[in-house]
Amino acid sequence: MTPKHPSESLTVLTDLVLPSETNHINNLFGGELLARMDRAASIAGQRHSRCITVTASVNHVAFAKPISLGSVVTIEAKVSRAFRSSMEVYIDVWVEDRISGIKTKANEAIYTFVAVDENGKPVEVAPIIPETELEKKRYDAALRRKQLSLVLAGKMKPEEATELKALFV
Amino acid sequence: MTPKHPSESLTVLTDLVLPSETNHINNLFGGELLARMDRAASIAGQRHSRCITVTASVNHVAFAKPISLGSVVTIEAKVSRAFRSSMEVYIDVWVEDRISGIKTKANEAIYTFVAVDENGKPVEVAPIIPETELEKKRYDAALRRKQLSLVLAGKMKPEEATELKALFV
Amino acid sequence: MTPKHPSESLTVLTDLVLPSETNHINNLFGGELLARMDRAASIAGQRHSRCITVTASVNHVAFAKPISLGSVVTIEAKVSRAFRSSMEVYIDVWVEDRISGIKTKANEAIYTFVAVDENGKPVEVAPIIPETELEKKRYDAALRRKQLSLVLAGKMKPEEATELKALFV
Amino acid sequence: MTPKHPSESLTVLTDLVLPSETNHINNLFGGELLARMDRAASIAGQRHSRCITVTASVNHVAFAKPISLGSVVTIEAKVSRAFRSSMEVYIDVWVEDRISGIKTKANEAIYTFVAVDENGKPVEVAPIIPETELEKKRYDAALRRKQLSLVLAGKMKPEEATELKALFV
Amino acid sequence: MTPKHPSESLTVLTDLVLPSETNHINNLFGGELLARMDRAASIAGQRHSRCITVTASVNHVAFAKPISLGSVVTIEAKVSRAFRSSMEVYIDVWVEDRISGIKTKANEAIYTFVAVDENGKPVEVAPIIPETELEKKRYDAALRRKQLSLVLAGKMKPEEATELKALFV
Amino acid sequence: MTPKHPSESLTVLTDLVLPSETNHINNLFGGELLARMDRAASIAGQRHSRCITVTASVNHVAFAKPISLGSVVTIEAKVSRAFRSSMEVYIDVWVEDRISGIKTKANEAIYTFVAVDENGKPVEVAPIIPETELEKKRYDAALRRKQLSLVLAGKMKPEEATELKALFV
Repeated sequence: MTPKHPSESLTVLTDLVLPSETNHINNLFGGELLARMDRAASIAGQRHSRCITVTASVNHVAFAKPISLGSVVTIEAKVSRAFRSSMEVYIDVWVEDRISGIKTKANEAIYTFVAVDENGKPVEVAPIIPETELEKKRYDAALRRKQLSLVLAGKMKPEEATELKALFV
Repeated sequence: MTPKHPSESLTVLTDLVLPSETNHINNLFGGELLARMDRAASIAGQRHSRCITVTASVNHVAFAKPISLGSVVTIEAKVSRAFRSSMEVYIDVWVEDRISGIKTKANEAIYTFVAVDENGKPVEVAPIIPETELEKKRYDAALRRKQLSLVLAGKMKPEEATELKALFV
Repeated sequence: MTPKHPSESLTVLTDLVLPSETNHINNLFGGELLARMDRAASIAGQRHSRCITVTASVNHVAFAKPISLGSVVTIEAKVSRAFRSSMEVYIDVWVEDRISGIKTKANEAIYTFVAVDENGKPVEVAPIIPETELEKKRYDAALRRKQLSLVLAGKMKPEEATELKALFV
Repeated sequence: MTPKHPSESLTVLTDLVLPSETNHINNLFGGELLARMDRAASIAGQRHSRCITVTASVNHVAFAKPISLGSVVTIEAKVSRAFRSSMEVYIDVWVEDRISGIKTKANEAIYTFVAVDENGKPVEVAPIIPETELEKKRYDAALRRKQLSLVLAGKMKPEEATELKALFV
Repeated sequence: MTPKHPSESLTVLTDLVLPSETNHINNLFGGELLARMDRAASIAGQRHSRCITVTASVNHVAFAKPISLGSVVTIEAKVSRAFRSSMEVYIDVWVEDRISGIKTKANEAIYTFVAVDENGKPVEVAPIIPETELEKKRYDAALRRKQLSLVLAGKMKPEEATELKALFV
Repeated sequence: MTPKHPSESLTVLTDLVLPSETNHINNLFGGELLARMDRAASIAGQRHSRCITVTASVNHVAFAKPISLGSVVTIEAKVSRAFRSSMEVYIDVWVEDRISGIKTKANEAIYTFVAVDENGKPVEVAPIIPETELEKKRYDAALRRKQLSLVLAGKMKPEEATELKALFV
């Protein structure tokens, strides 16, 4: 399959924080942010694979700072690496200051999706060729994360997780 | 005030159509689309004015074709022209084919917002300088639409609506 | 087809403004009001046509004044004029003062719906015979609005829009 | 206080049944109907008392027949009887056939509200004078229901519930 | 059919009160609580009957005290008595103090469900054998409530409602 | 501080899957499940700490199998280990077969929360003493996960992550 660049799956979801999406201390409710990121990330996966995608796992969501009521939130999702039929999607969340227009990073998250056919059977997806420095860094780290999740799930022996092992030895 | 380009207020809201957002024949519910466009357009107005914005009017929403359940919908909103304290925001809505990735136009809408201060008093906003052909065309038409709404509201005499009158005479 | 009166399609939707329906300054969110009006107006169109109706366009929504949290909002929708298979629905929105019970006008909007059969093909609808002074005024203006939208869409030459032209010449 | 008629508090909430409001067999979800009736009934209580109202109890909700997706549902709520600071609100729910326009009764419910001041303290409300036969019947039955709820709550001895007792002796 | 104990249908729904679920004075909206109780109670009915269940009626919902924004609310639902194909479900609602962890009773409600097959035809359900003192008390009272609702619906003559009559004579 | 057992923070959220919570292939939408788990897990964190809690990170959410419309879903959340002011909450998600009543595991997730005071400053929480075999296993693994997240965030050198390192060497 013809490889694709992460930019080809870039998905931007800009939206407000309304009262119906806050927790009781007037910040964006964590669950609502998780849901929005899931929507954006699944579209990125769909754009890369041109298939139906199902959420396989969520990892490394770091809630760096609260997002207050009335904020403008921009979610940017891109496929960071593809394996046989699964795709790692990297998500950056920005909050925009109304007066200065400056965007600051509020969250990061990594979701994994599997591309499936109409019967739910996994199908192969195109590989990723990263372009920017950040995309390359995330592409490399994706393999360590993949090995890590296999080790934690008992599907790979730690000694076979060569990329990961190199970190510790 | 320093003029701005429409591209500086560009707001992109890409999202799925889930069952909770459909009508009973499995298309995106009209009211839900109106709400999503309002969210995107108010962010565009905020990006242009760096102020709180309130919806003043909605005009010329044309529901060109139904948007089915599971679609990927992209809403793009840009300020097309600014008057003293009001901004016309032009909204394009696209639906993306999952297999080919081709986007087709599904809707267009024009919303007007007023920039206000903390007490709700209108404040002046920067003028717009259009750049592309389409932006220029929309910029020119915005004046006719402005005159039209003033005429229809009885706040301008038809003979004073020079731009509009020229269409008919 | 037997003509009908606007009152035969009158649809009343009285409801509260709860926190989940507000914007971040505690007024009814514009998008939510657009959605509620769409629901009421589509029922009015259905009552007139006894058919499935789809939203064709939204025009002339004027957000006259903000509606605060906890308000009682009454939406009244009536078919103001019918063309072959399309219906203009005129919507009045009232807010009720809790102490005095006095209702004040908060918004007006005009939606257009098309009556369709099970396959989505347009079907003819009954003509409208207005009764009250206000209904007659809205009925007459509906033709000008119809011509205007055809002119703006490039489907009618300005010189053929006789009703509209008369305003300016 | 000047007595009022039930018709003075009549509240009509006409709305569609959209997919987001159904259960998994495509009928209006019971909980959603309960919520809609609560909204309509609390407005009726507010219109009668011109006060803030809080839901005190719900009784005798009979789900007579399922309401299917896409239906037009009309909820009519009226204060049926007022006691010192509480009001019984009687709710009728109708479903409208799209082709014939005929409305059939789908549900009935009785909610009780208490009128309170800004500090949540109960305040006195105007008495009710029923007009129609149905209003009179419901007015009379309201006293028996009141006694019944006091007896069941252990706040009235059965032998003191004269109206109720008369039913059984 | 083998009888079951109320504990076999115990359903616990613990959840937060978020801003989207409040009324305009920052307490859990009555309609939202009714909807949550309906969800929990229908699961209890399903666990007892192992069938599809439909809400037949709601009775005796007493809103004892308001539940404020941010509270932890626990809903416990158990089948209190089964008749041929209907089940009375008793619901207790608790609010938990964040500091002390002490739960206080906030509401009680009684819902009735009917077990149906795929065609909506009522099917027989297992009888209930109460175990605790409270379960026994509610089991006995359920018969009086059943008779009461039959009497009020005109489906049983007051003199035949022996259990109920005994209260008053 | 007096240590606590995981069972003291056990939070059970049993609920239905209604159409408004599904994706377009009629399974529980991933984002909705993430939101529900966040609600249950934050209550567990609150029960352990008796403080306000904020979501710090989400890790290791494995979507093992889709959950279909109409299912009964039970979410069980317990604090698995406490560090100074943070708590790891382990979440098990079960789906219940309507006919047999058998529950099968559908998902697992690990959320981390921080306990804060009214000003958002982290406060110390009680340590955890695991009781069951599963609780002990999760307690031990929590330290490796903690070290891993510190290493990945660049806040701990890999060679200092002794527990984690032992896996690979």
